[in-house]
Amino acid sequence: MQYEQPLLTIDLVVFAFHQEELSVLVVKRDACPFEHHWALPQGEINPTIDVSLEAAAKRHLKQLTGYEALYLEQVQTLGNQQRDPRGWSVAIVYYCLAASSQVLSGKSLQWIKINDIVGMKLAFDNHQVIDSCLQRFQNKSLYTSLPLFLLPEEFSLTELQKAYESILGFKMEKKSFRRRLLEAGFLEKTGNIRRAKHRPAQLYRLTSLQPYFFPRIIEGVRDSKNVE
Amino acid sequence: MQYEQPLLTIDLVVFAFHQEELSVLVVKRDACPFEHHWALPQGEINPTIDVSLEAAAKRHLKQLTGYEALYLEQVQTLGNQQRDPRGWSVAIVYYCLAASSQVLSGKSLQWIKINDIVGMKLAFDNHQVIDSCLQRFQNKSLYTSLPLFLLPEEFSLTELQKAYESILGFKMEKKSFRRRLLEAGFLEKTGNIRRAKHRPAQLYRLTSLQPYFFPRIIEGVRDSKNVE
Repeated sequence: MQYEQPLLTIDLVVFAFHQEELSVLVVKRDACPFEHHWALPQGEINPTIDVSLEAAAKRHLKQLTGYEALYLEQVQTLGNQQRDPRGWSVAIVYYCLAASSQVLSGKSLQWIKINDIVGMKLAFDNHQVIDSCLQRFQNKSLYTSLPLFLLPEEFSLTELQKAYESILGFKMEKKSFRRRLLEAGFLEKTGNIRRAKHRPAQLYRLTSLQPYFFPRIIEGVRDSKNVE
Repeated sequence: MQYEQPLLTIDLVVFAFHQEELSVLVVKRDACPFEHHWALPQGEINPTIDVSLEAAAKRHLKQLTGYEALYLEQVQTLGNQQRDPRGWSVAIVYYCLAASSQVLSGKSLQWIKINDIVGMKLAFDNHQVIDSCLQRFQNKSLYTSLPLFLLPEEFSLTELQKAYESILGFKMEKKSFRRRLLEAGFLEKTGNIRRAKHRPAQLYRLTSLQPYFFPRIIEGVRDSKNVE
């Protein structure tokens, strides 16, 4: 039997650090429904161009932001009668990690800090979509090198630790965190040094674009006296 | 922009115990493509009947097998140009757990043991779909009560342990397994006793249809001398 098919979109939750805080990209809608509302970037599948769902997601991200997705992960597919006033609608949801410096921002394109998203009016069931992606990303950050995909090409170990702490929401003990990251073998010194407020910091880069899985999850400090 | 939309289906991986082994339900296709091939049950969304993706999945399961899904979980959505010879196709994949006694089997409907699936020719990318669902179900069985959803309404503790062992592929130490399951509080005695080959066994049932999450994962016995 052939029915009229539901609307089908790919919805993107793009995470990046903006002003040192984990943020999500939103676009201002220029069409109904929810015209002039902020919403997650979304796009259709173009069967003549896209070879797969992932390729379609990457194409929309590139067209929208100019950014090549280094990491992209499918989280869930939502579909029901209510989520779109036009009728039955299905959204295949991906989250992607962006080094924020690579991403353009304009009048109809904005970074919203995770903590500010909560009070915002967003189109469709976008709040639910963001929540599920944030939860997946936080869980994975406990045992992978994914937070590093949000950093610029060169970064210091302090920036790296701040990235983990900002995503996970807890502080970590500097010495054991650094030992663990360096022993994992996915970092190399670039030879460059950054001179900031404090003493000069060695800069590092990733040796691989494959996420690294730690054998044990990352834990926060139990005693705040241990935090520098 | 409006494109011709991809084909959209819901694909179901139905797990049950058949002849004491974890098995998957396949149906014989009666239409092209892959006519007369065994395939996973699949169905379309009917926008006038189904209120959500999950409702559509439950409806197809019910129509096909007569079975009310006690547990249903979305695993992934596959979509590309190659998986269906008719063109761009998207499958939203769910696995469901069935108490096998509740499910009808016929000429065009069969249970295939997990170990026998490997060598079988199946339609589309069904092997990949089954693999991903099996992996998810096995992982979740390590720390939840999900294997109990495959048992009949009344079961003995021995049957329960065999269910876990069959899904996980390793043996467990009887005493600590039973203590753990009974302490979790989701089992109650039915008052009935089954008289089998061995000594009579107390029968139990679930007190809740919500999956229980164990605080620690279930482990196999390290020393085979401990297995009864």
